[in-house]
Amino acid sequence: MIWTVYLSGEIHSDWRDQIIAGAKALELPVVFTSAVTNHEASDAAGDLLQPESSGYWRDHKSSRVNGIRTQTLLEKCDLAIIRFGDKYKQWNAAFDAGYCAAKGKPYITLHAEDIIHPLKEVDGSAMAWAQTPAQVVEILSYVVDE
Amino acid sequence: MIWTVYLSGEIHSDWRDQIIAGAKALELPVVFTSAVTNHEASDAAGDLLQPESSGYWRDHKSSRVNGIRTQTLLEKCDLAIIRFGDKYKQWNAAFDAGYCAAKGKPYITLHAEDIIHPLKEVDGSAMAWAQTPAQVVEILSYVVDE
Amino acid sequence: MIWTVYLSGEIHSDWRDQIIAGAKALELPVVFTSAVTNHEASDAAGDLLQPESSGYWRDHKSSRVNGIRTQTLLEKCDLAIIRFGDKYKQWNAAFDAGYCAAKGKPYITLHAEDIIHPLKEVDGSAMAWAQTPAQVVEILSYVVDE
Amino acid sequence: MIWTVYLSGEIHSDWRDQIIAGAKALELPVVFTSAVTNHEASDAAGDLLQPESSGYWRDHKSSRVNGIRTQTLLEKCDLAIIRFGDKYKQWNAAFDAGYCAAKGKPYITLHAEDIIHPLKEVDGSAMAWAQTPAQVVEILSYVVDE
Amino acid sequence: MIWTVYLSGEIHSDWRDQIIAGAKALELPVVFTSAVTNHEASDAAGDLLQPESSGYWRDHKSSRVNGIRTQTLLEKCDLAIIRFGDKYKQWNAAFDAGYCAAKGKPYITLHAEDIIHPLKEVDGSAMAWAQTPAQVVEILSYVVDE
Amino acid sequence: MIWTVYLSGEIHSDWRDQIIAGAKALELPVVFTSAVTNHEASDAAGDLLQPESSGYWRDHKSSRVNGIRTQTLLEKCDLAIIRFGDKYKQWNAAFDAGYCAAKGKPYITLHAEDIIHPLKEVDGSAMAWAQTPAQVVEILSYVVDE
Amino acid sequence: MIWTVYLSGEIHSDWRDQIIAGAKALELPVVFTSAVTNHEASDAAGDLLQPESSGYWRDHKSSRVNGIRTQTLLEKCDLAIIRFGDKYKQWNAAFDAGYCAAKGKPYITLHAEDIIHPLKEVDGSAMAWAQTPAQVVEILSYVVDE
Amino acid sequence: MIWTVYLSGEIHSDWRDQIIAGAKALELPVVFTSAVTNHEASDAAGDLLQPESSGYWRDHKSSRVNGIRTQTLLEKCDLAIIRFGDKYKQWNAAFDAGYCAAKGKPYITLHAEDIIHPLKEVDGSAMAWAQTPAQVVEILSYVVDE
Repeated sequence: MIWTVYLSGEIHSDWRDQIIAGAKALELPVVFTSAVTNHEASDAAGDLLQPESSGYWRDHKSSRVNGIRTQTLLEKCDLAIIRFGDKYKQWNAAFDAGYCAAKGKPYITLHAEDIIHPLKEVDGSAMAWAQTPAQVVEILSYVVDE
Repeated sequence: MIWTVYLSGEIHSDWRDQIIAGAKALELPVVFTSAVTNHEASDAAGDLLQPESSGYWRDHKSSRVNGIRTQTLLEKCDLAIIRFGDKYKQWNAAFDAGYCAAKGKPYITLHAEDIIHPLKEVDGSAMAWAQTPAQVVEILSYVVDE
Repeated sequence: MIWTVYLSGEIHSDWRDQIIAGAKALELPVVFTSAVTNHEASDAAGDLLQPESSGYWRDHKSSRVNGIRTQTLLEKCDLAIIRFGDKYKQWNAAFDAGYCAAKGKPYITLHAEDIIHPLKEVDGSAMAWAQTPAQVVEILSYVVDE
Repeated sequence: MIWTVYLSGEIHSDWRDQIIAGAKALELPVVFTSAVTNHEASDAAGDLLQPESSGYWRDHKSSRVNGIRTQTLLEKCDLAIIRFGDKYKQWNAAFDAGYCAAKGKPYITLHAEDIIHPLKEVDGSAMAWAQTPAQVVEILSYVVDE
Repeated sequence: MIWTVYLSGEIHSDWRDQIIAGAKALELPVVFTSAVTNHEASDAAGDLLQPESSGYWRDHKSSRVNGIRTQTLLEKCDLAIIRFGDKYKQWNAAFDAGYCAAKGKPYITLHAEDIIHPLKEVDGSAMAWAQTPAQVVEILSYVVDE
Repeated sequence: MIWTVYLSGEIHSDWRDQIIAGAKALELPVVFTSAVTNHEASDAAGDLLQPESSGYWRDHKSSRVNGIRTQTLLEKCDLAIIRFGDKYKQWNAAFDAGYCAAKGKPYITLHAEDIIHPLKEVDGSAMAWAQTPAQVVEILSYVVDE
Repeated sequence: MIWTVYLSGEIHSDWRDQIIAGAKALELPVVFTSAVTNHEASDAAGDLLQPESSGYWRDHKSSRVNGIRTQTLLEKCDLAIIRFGDKYKQWNAAFDAGYCAAKGKPYITLHAEDIIHPLKEVDGSAMAWAQTPAQVVEILSYVVDE
Repeated sequence: MIWTVYLSGEIHSDWRDQIIAGAKALELPVVFTSAVTNHEASDAAGDLLQPESSGYWRDHKSSRVNGIRTQTLLEKCDLAIIRFGDKYKQWNAAFDAGYCAAKGKPYITLHAEDIIHPLKEVDGSAMAWAQTPAQVVEILSYVVDE
């Protein structure tokens, strides 16, 4: 079995690359998926469509175009890794966690110790809380073992 | 028909009271539900249970006890109002929004204009974005009209 | 058992009133629900919300506010009556029919004979095709008999 | 991942060919599906079956045979494109949109600006509104990017 | 809790009356539902609708009108009793059993010993096989006890 | 797309072979599945298991072993063909039809004209009624066309 | 809102009575349901039905009659309390826990500390682990607070 | 079709190896999946994660990491074999059986005759009860036959 793992959240550090490289090094039977992680491209995802918009409607148009991709990939994944960094609100990551919880889809959170308390509901429904990409790779290695 | 409306999010302002009072004044056929909104009681929800815990496990134990209530009430509501204030991370509110989206349950977000951009995914799946409790009451009044 | 019947479609003739009056005359155990049928109110359902919008976004905002009501009532009904009149596009009525079909919710179409052909997919998934409100009442009377 | 995209609606213009050609030119990992788009064949889909029928029952018989194909392909697609042209009622396209909405399946509408208002409920549940096949291809290209 | 019990199958003997009378005598908290059991009325259920039809299409029209009632009542029941008598094909009773099995809805079959073998698939998914209405009442009495 | 078609019902004539041969001749992209159609093997499916049983319990044990196969194949098929011959009760075929109806899985019935009336509920939920294997092949050919 | 709480497991101590009495003393809006807890009656639940059976088939017949009640009450409850005592295998309690987990239904386990390790999978999906009926009542009191 | 069969339960005897070898000898089109069956590795599955824990929380952490694997494989299997040996509590096996029952996923129990009575609820929802791995292989061989 090939496992599909969705990587959700922070786009300003290289945690995705670390996990993907780690899984590759171990030759794990895992395929990774993700939202479009180019921030500017993501914000502009709906700009080609009419009506030309700014502010709330521009965000709305782009977030729904992005939703075509993210909702589909979440539905198809076997496991999600939800990453919270030390900057920004990252409400979309918490949103993805809630989506997984409602669908009975297992997810692992990945974040530092200092935000345990505000993340307690998100962590409470998670299957595991990891602090480093290396830990995520180690869990993956254990979970997908054949 | 009596509508059940779940009020999710910020617990440091009186937005719940305003909405409930507004609906009462209009005699709307609406029942409101909510998580336990006493912050200290919520944090201590699991403290009576063994093993005595602190830090991560204390949060974990309490968040799961709270989850008995919040998951059940979310499943039973017809509509959720998801409130984001100007303080704190409020990841649980975004989590509830994701939960509603996955279940096909309609929700309205309630927040100020200055956090439109970080909330774009949460707003993108919402049925409406309101800025004041009075607007929420007005929409409720329209929606539940018989 | 009280049956809940959702009345979808045309708002420019009195077919809803005829069905409701007919059911009342027979004292059928039926409750009727419906979208907001005041055309102007429906088009303006989102106008109280920011950002002020016109054209596509105004329609979008209002249709989503209306969706809170219509999606909820469709989910809760036992049976839907989908009415197509002789004017306008009435794509929302066909949309509701598709929604019912996907949910396994039974529906009856109500329309004149001259639009049988363009409605063949909508009729093909319907449980019955009626031409007059009186026929709908007669079927209701038969179906809900105790 | 190979994406499956269902093309629903108008059969009197070459919009399907344009989208398919555009996706092919970009070598997108997309497979397209569709109802039988030969109008005469579609109307006669049930003619080989007894009882020989005309009018309503002929349409009924054929629409249900067509439904074997269309319902199955809709259930299996990842995304639907719903096209409304400038002629005919096209209630089947709106029906497909409602079906997708009920199943939580994302769809994009494709239509000219002059029918925004009658399509507001259909557009309100769509993830995007495009006006040209080229825009659809551009969104596909963005959404399926690996 | 009030239990809702759907009575499916044979309409030529008084088994329904016996079960209802037995439950009433014991004052069980049970409500019974059923298809329309007047054979002629059931066959004519669609006759008021156009197009006037005979043979296959008359049966089709009536069976779908009846389906509005039977499908809804099956979905709402807590338990079904599926009765097979010694005459007729009674394929609708076996159809209802398959419907219950697919929905995870418990059902009890009620039939004589001499048709055990042809009913083995239907009995195999049943929660119990009873031979007399009195046995059904006894099981009901046990099952709904508070 | 490869279509999976489940063949349910009568095991005393060669209708399965005719359909399979017809599809093969046309090189249709169809895979056929079926219950075990060896009557004696099917009746003895549970005989290897304890406790040794006869009568009702033997049938019960075998029908549940057979159910592992039939339930799984029904869940995985895209379309079912439900065949009623002129002998025996064939309640399992009607059971499979009800199962499909409850799951929203399309099916075609295949039977002679003289049993239209007792099959009216089974036919009423079918997508088509065919009288010969050749008609089934013709419909398959139309439906799976690429 | 009235909460429905299913009490599953051990029938040889008075833990059910303690929880019910505790909830009554606090006037909690809770209704309790349960399997038939009379051991002999439960073992004999199918004895009235043919064929007379002993050993495996007697157990099978009774367990399926009991399943009508237990499956229905589990489906309808908002929360389950799963009790493991210090005697017997109690596999039915673990079975109910697995059933709840699969349905996304919250449950609380109630057991002594010395069986933590063998119950780790059952506890791992629980929302809370309590050691005394009084703790369960305290959690209920917190969770159902209005 | 390749069947996926999940092997749940006892890890102290070689029943898994016997079934796998038996299926291989017959060249059955079956793939087997399983929890991690190395007892020490399974108990330590969460040890790499913070916070370092012992007792209840260590078990909790590990059982949830294991749950990522077991829940996913259960969801994806076509059939489960649930094994109860003569030692230990094996509540996780009963838990898996309840999970399968709730999902409508067929399972076969594998256990000796002397624990029939305490397993009656688990067996009551099973499709078959086998006493030896050889019997399981024989049933598999029958069920997956093409």
